[in-house]
Amino acid sequence: MVSKNQKKLINSLHQKKYRKQHHLFIAEGIKVINEFIDAGFVLHRLFTTEDHLFSVDNTQCYEVTEAELKQLSQLKTPQKALALFEIPKEKDENYNGLVLALDDVSDPGNLGTIIRLCDWFGVTELICSKQTVDCYNPKVVQATMGSLSRVNIRYLDLKQFLEEQQHSHTIYGTFMDGDPIYTASKSCVKSIIVMGNEANGISPTIEQLVTHKIAIPRFGQLQLTESLNVATATSIVLNEFRRADFTTET
Amino acid sequence: MVSKNQKKLINSLHQKKYRKQHHLFIAEGIKVINEFIDAGFVLHRLFTTEDHLFSVDNTQCYEVTEAELKQLSQLKTPQKALALFEIPKEKDENYNGLVLALDDVSDPGNLGTIIRLCDWFGVTELICSKQTVDCYNPKVVQATMGSLSRVNIRYLDLKQFLEEQQHSHTIYGTFMDGDPIYTASKSCVKSIIVMGNEANGISPTIEQLVTHKIAIPRFGQLQLTESLNVATATSIVLNEFRRADFTTET
Repeated sequence: MVSKNQKKLINSLHQKKYRKQHHLFIAEGIKVINEFIDAGFVLHRLFTTEDHLFSVDNTQCYEVTEAELKQLSQLKTPQKALALFEIPKEKDENYNGLVLALDDVSDPGNLGTIIRLCDWFGVTELICSKQTVDCYNPKVVQATMGSLSRVNIRYLDLKQFLEEQQHSHTIYGTFMDGDPIYTASKSCVKSIIVMGNEANGISPTIEQLVTHKIAIPRFGQLQLTESLNVATATSIVLNEFRRADFTTET
Repeated sequence: MVSKNQKKLINSLHQKKYRKQHHLFIAEGIKVINEFIDAGFVLHRLFTTEDHLFSVDNTQCYEVTEAELKQLSQLKTPQKALALFEIPKEKDENYNGLVLALDDVSDPGNLGTIIRLCDWFGVTELICSKQTVDCYNPKVVQATMGSLSRVNIRYLDLKQFLEEQQHSHTIYGTFMDGDPIYTASKSCVKSIIVMGNEANGISPTIEQLVTHKIAIPRFGQLQLTESLNVATATSIVLNEFRRADFTTET
């Protein structure tokens, strides 16, 4: 049974200001929820049609019917469980390796995919500009497929962050007129890669702080494709940085 | 002014069977529509609030109000123009280069992104299994951002297609236990790359026809990411095949 207040709380968490106020976010689906539990996230409430699939404290677990879950869920096909987790405190920063920074990425699906890519490529530090979509937005949480539990994400004034790092770090950014990424020098030590907004790319203010402009070459006869989606561009860029290490080591 | 019959026709084109029956598909937005016109697609009807932006025959062009366009459009923010184009006849096949084949990709956004990637990486031949989402689905058309006009897409019995090509072509497929793509031999001549379904990957029947299994290496300490999204995996794979040519040539 789900109370009116619980429904109201869950509904409010689709908005960033209430997530911030309650320090809670929504995760849906057995696999995703269990990944957050395993990663040490603090469970606040669990609503599920299959409570035997979770090893959690009874006081936190509400058995619900499929109809009730459907009312709570924003997914087209509800995933047997919806949980509220506490938004964790930020971990200590470690910028010694490869850091990814996002300059106003606005689409939740793109941010979710990028977080999953960070997890895949072992990038644990993700810096988001203040205008980047909130990583605890339910659509982002679902798109990360659990990777959100393994990547440290910080929302900072990106200009200020890069100004602080520019003397110790190399700052890369993708531009159409950059050096071809295949042959450009790339390092995974004290390096920051900036990826830009879907429509506008990297903003002029941030561009001034980029020390190494790189480009993903385009192929074929016509070369009319205007740009790559920011998530697919990120996958190519992270792959290029990591492959250098891989091919050196083996 | 939009007639009731025109509204009905446009609405019906959201379903594959009516697109097939009428040989028409929907494209929205000034840029996308002009790319189809420039690429030689046959315009059937254009509904726009800004007819001065198009150089098309008056008999095909209907000036509409924003309110009318909103009724026709499936986009959250209608894009000033909606057009119906004829679905073109298939061009002659040319499988001598790098061919991409999709084994039941089901998400329209993923197929759209993959078509855009083919365009970027100069892959003009895309083979889709019969179960792959229709490339003239309006969501796919929008996600391709005009790239659909530059990639030849064929829906075939994928098993039969690969059986026909297996004696002359190398057939690559991505699997978790494949050879690392960085060091695996890769050729862009008479090569087919198979990418699998979002949930199930490459099906067992198709797997048997793959001659070269490749894998995208995973990095970091935990390596718990289960898989990459099929569109981001495709971007990495196409980049890896093309970069070999690029770095050899330069």
